[in-house]
Amino acid sequence: MWKLDRSSHQTLYHQIADEMERRISYGEFPSGSLLPSERKLAELLGVNRSTVILAYEELRSLGIIESRTGSGTRVSKYKWGAIPKHTPNWHHYVEGGHFLPNLPFLRRIREALQQDRTLIDFASGELAPELSPNEEISSLIKEKTFSEYLGYDNPQGFSPLREQLVSYLSQYRNIQTTESSILITSGSQQSLYLITQCLLAPGDAVAIEDPSYIYSLPMFQSAGLRLFRLPVDEKGIRPEDIRTLYQKNRIKMIFVNPNFQNPTGTFLDSERRIQLLQVASELGLPIVEDDPFSLTSYDGIPPNPLKSSDQLGSVLYIGSFSKIAASGLRVGWMVAPHSVVERLADARQQMDFGLSVVPQQIAAQFLKSSYFEPHLERLRMQLLYKRDLLIEALQKELPEEVTFMIPQGGLHLWCRIIPKVNDHKLFEEGIRRGIIYAPGSVYGSDSGYVRFTFARTKAEDIAPGISKFAEALRSILS
Amino acid sequence: MWKLDRSSHQTLYHQIADEMERRISYGEFPSGSLLPSERKLAELLGVNRSTVILAYEELRSLGIIESRTGSGTRVSKYKWGAIPKHTPNWHHYVEGGHFLPNLPFLRRIREALQQDRTLIDFASGELAPELSPNEEISSLIKEKTFSEYLGYDNPQGFSPLREQLVSYLSQYRNIQTTESSILITSGSQQSLYLITQCLLAPGDAVAIEDPSYIYSLPMFQSAGLRLFRLPVDEKGIRPEDIRTLYQKNRIKMIFVNPNFQNPTGTFLDSERRIQLLQVASELGLPIVEDDPFSLTSYDGIPPNPLKSSDQLGSVLYIGSFSKIAASGLRVGWMVAPHSVVERLADARQQMDFGLSVVPQQIAAQFLKSSYFEPHLERLRMQLLYKRDLLIEALQKELPEEVTFMIPQGGLHLWCRIIPKVNDHKLFEEGIRRGIIYAPGSVYGSDSGYVRFTFARTKAEDIAPGISKFAEALRSILS
Repeated sequence: MWKLDRSSHQTLYHQIADEMERRISYGEFPSGSLLPSERKLAELLGVNRSTVILAYEELRSLGIIESRTGSGTRVSKYKWGAIPKHTPNWHHYVEGGHFLPNLPFLRRIREALQQDRTLIDFASGELAPELSPNEEISSLIKEKTFSEYLGYDNPQGFSPLREQLVSYLSQYRNIQTTESSILITSGSQQSLYLITQCLLAPGDAVAIEDPSYIYSLPMFQSAGLRLFRLPVDEKGIRPEDIRTLYQKNRIKMIFVNPNFQNPTGTFLDSERRIQLLQVASELGLPIVEDDPFSLTSYDGIPPNPLKSSDQLGSVLYIGSFSKIAASGLRVGWMVAPHSVVERLADARQQMDFGLSVVPQQIAAQFLKSSYFEPHLERLRMQLLYKRDLLIEALQKELPEEVTFMIPQGGLHLWCRIIPKVNDHKLFEEGIRRGIIYAPGSVYGSDSGYVRFTFARTKAEDIAPGISKFAEALRSILS
Repeated sequence: MWKLDRSSHQTLYHQIADEMERRISYGEFPSGSLLPSERKLAELLGVNRSTVILAYEELRSLGIIESRTGSGTRVSKYKWGAIPKHTPNWHHYVEGGHFLPNLPFLRRIREALQQDRTLIDFASGELAPELSPNEEISSLIKEKTFSEYLGYDNPQGFSPLREQLVSYLSQYRNIQTTESSILITSGSQQSLYLITQCLLAPGDAVAIEDPSYIYSLPMFQSAGLRLFRLPVDEKGIRPEDIRTLYQKNRIKMIFVNPNFQNPTGTFLDSERRIQLLQVASELGLPIVEDDPFSLTSYDGIPPNPLKSSDQLGSVLYIGSFSKIAASGLRVGWMVAPHSVVERLADARQQMDFGLSVVPQQIAAQFLKSSYFEPHLERLRMQLLYKRDLLIEALQKELPEEVTFMIPQGGLHLWCRIIPKVNDHKLFEEGIRRGIIYAPGSVYGSDSGYVRFTFARTKAEDIAPGISKFAEALRSILS
């Protein structure tokens, strides 16, 4: 990162001008490209705007950059070559691809978290470092032999890991499968990406839960899919809605997260599970079951997935280490008929040539180690503890203003804000007061909802964080 | 893998029937799906066809599978449910996506290598295990602390690795850049995938070398790109051809591999480099420079990349560890203007949420370790040694039948077969005699070329391998 040295004898504005010139000469900002605005750069560097103005003036006087009113500050074209049409119009290329950018709200969250490291984070859907088995994995790395062979891997993934997953799936998920029906992916995100890219075509209709974290993934829109909603009530989706959608819109696939759904925490009712499998099999529709949270079940008994009752092979099952161990390993898996696994593995070769064997070796060792069970136990206890802290704080601070269902597993609490508020205003007011969360609209829901993730937040920050949230809410209500 | 136990008291055909039934009940072969033919399964398991016939008869008698003349053997529908339309038509989904399957020739190579582990491998474009720094990396893993934090990574990649790459690129590639202009990818394949998906749109025309390994990547066709050829002679491509292509076909990007080109081993002439950069900048065209082999330069002096003379920021530079250290780490990088890096990083979040931090930590440690230089030295010596063994064998066995240019770096020798032969026949005859290579047509070239990769082959197998090749060639000539 770019850091200023406040103890240097060189003035700050000189440091900025020098660094900027170096970056321009290194091609980071090609000739003609737009530079950050003075205000933005000042924010980024944590200096006064006037300091940046001085730095830019310096660069302008050297002919390195040029500013025009209304079109910002750009790298000078004539300093770096005489023929006008000399650098590719990168802006044009960047805008031209058919991949949609991430949602502005998600970019805003990332930006805010980068800019202010002190923000209390109820937004990031991942485990806090102290919930991940970092020490256990460090020990395993020292104990075991890794990387005996670092060549290209089997397109379906590292065979000893798939072998280990066959036992894991049988023991923990009640799924009986074989190595050749498993595809190792770099996480649920890649599993979904492969499914949307390889099994569906632009224009295809699919059914997803409402609300659903899938709304936060432009991946579905980038693939040209049409999304239809299956409203989630306190028992999950209503399977009969699928029939209606099928008749009206010829949906081709159903995406569900039945256990501790993201974002609502809902558990799909057992009768509805049977109905869901029935409807899907009658219509010949595949179900994609995302199952990241089951092992966090606070009572220590992970609920069965749909896949465990899937006698006809209608379910593509997606699992991952990210929410139960470490997102940074980037190891996930899919269980599917072999023809599907083969197709997806083949396509993945074109995208990235498969995963590194190293994290796969670690994952396999961790699964079969004596660390795994105690880690899960500890994780569940900690999540339960944090959930209770969050509930307590919300009940204390906002007894009249919010309602929620108490989740029995997972990382999220889905909260309805009873008074009518402007989501955007509340969100920005929260950031100003030092707390960040994911607004419900990110998940396609109506206004007035908030997703609090309590897995990433430090336990001691939960109550103060909710105080700040309560202040923010009151400030815009008054 | 599926293994038969020949010492068991259970007959082989019973073992096959039992295992098949288990796999069907586990959903690996859903109801209605096609099973491998008797001949194919017999080959796979290394048993007589009659054994498989017996096993299939057993399963038929149980009503588990059914066979119809001309349409093969399928999992019975009625065993597994009464309503006919019950399992998704996976075949339809698998064929429906817009991702093209890999080339038949490449699938054939993979299959042949899987089926016969004794094949002498001149096909795989990767280093032999003994050329990879496996021991060095194992030592580093023991010495250093890894995985202190296993959370989601920065979308551009692990910051200490990018920092290390800034020095690496300056020291070894004569490229001056900054951390924020570097994107870590899981290898050149992902770099190219991101470029084709995010900076180009279906229908766009691009120029590639002829021959080029890019013809072996259906990725370009999957992205809907139109490919135009830049013929490679002994000095590489002719830059004036770009102007012609631009006028005729409005090409939007140029893909080149100037140092020890894959597959020809050609080094792009220094005058043509200047012309290439000039033409590209006049036309405002971006150049994608793939540079996987430079550090293998047998004289120990890695030639400069185009990027080192790219004053205008026209070049997107792609590098990787795969051909100079270990393909199994899956670590590559791209140097590009920050706006491009940012766009690609954002899109990659949708595909796979970035790389595991573990191989990135290893790569960063390896680059700054005292192991790196001696490893490169050893790699170069070994490659040179193997190249010479290959040349010697070809000159001894086929002095009149083949010609080639002697490569000064890289892993490949590109060989013209002088007598007219049927490529496919020669290839299959080679496999029958125990040797496999990549036929020239894979790289889009005319008939009569062969790419021998000598990096994967054991030194002691090179001469016997070429003997087998010579036998195969003579057998189809006679």
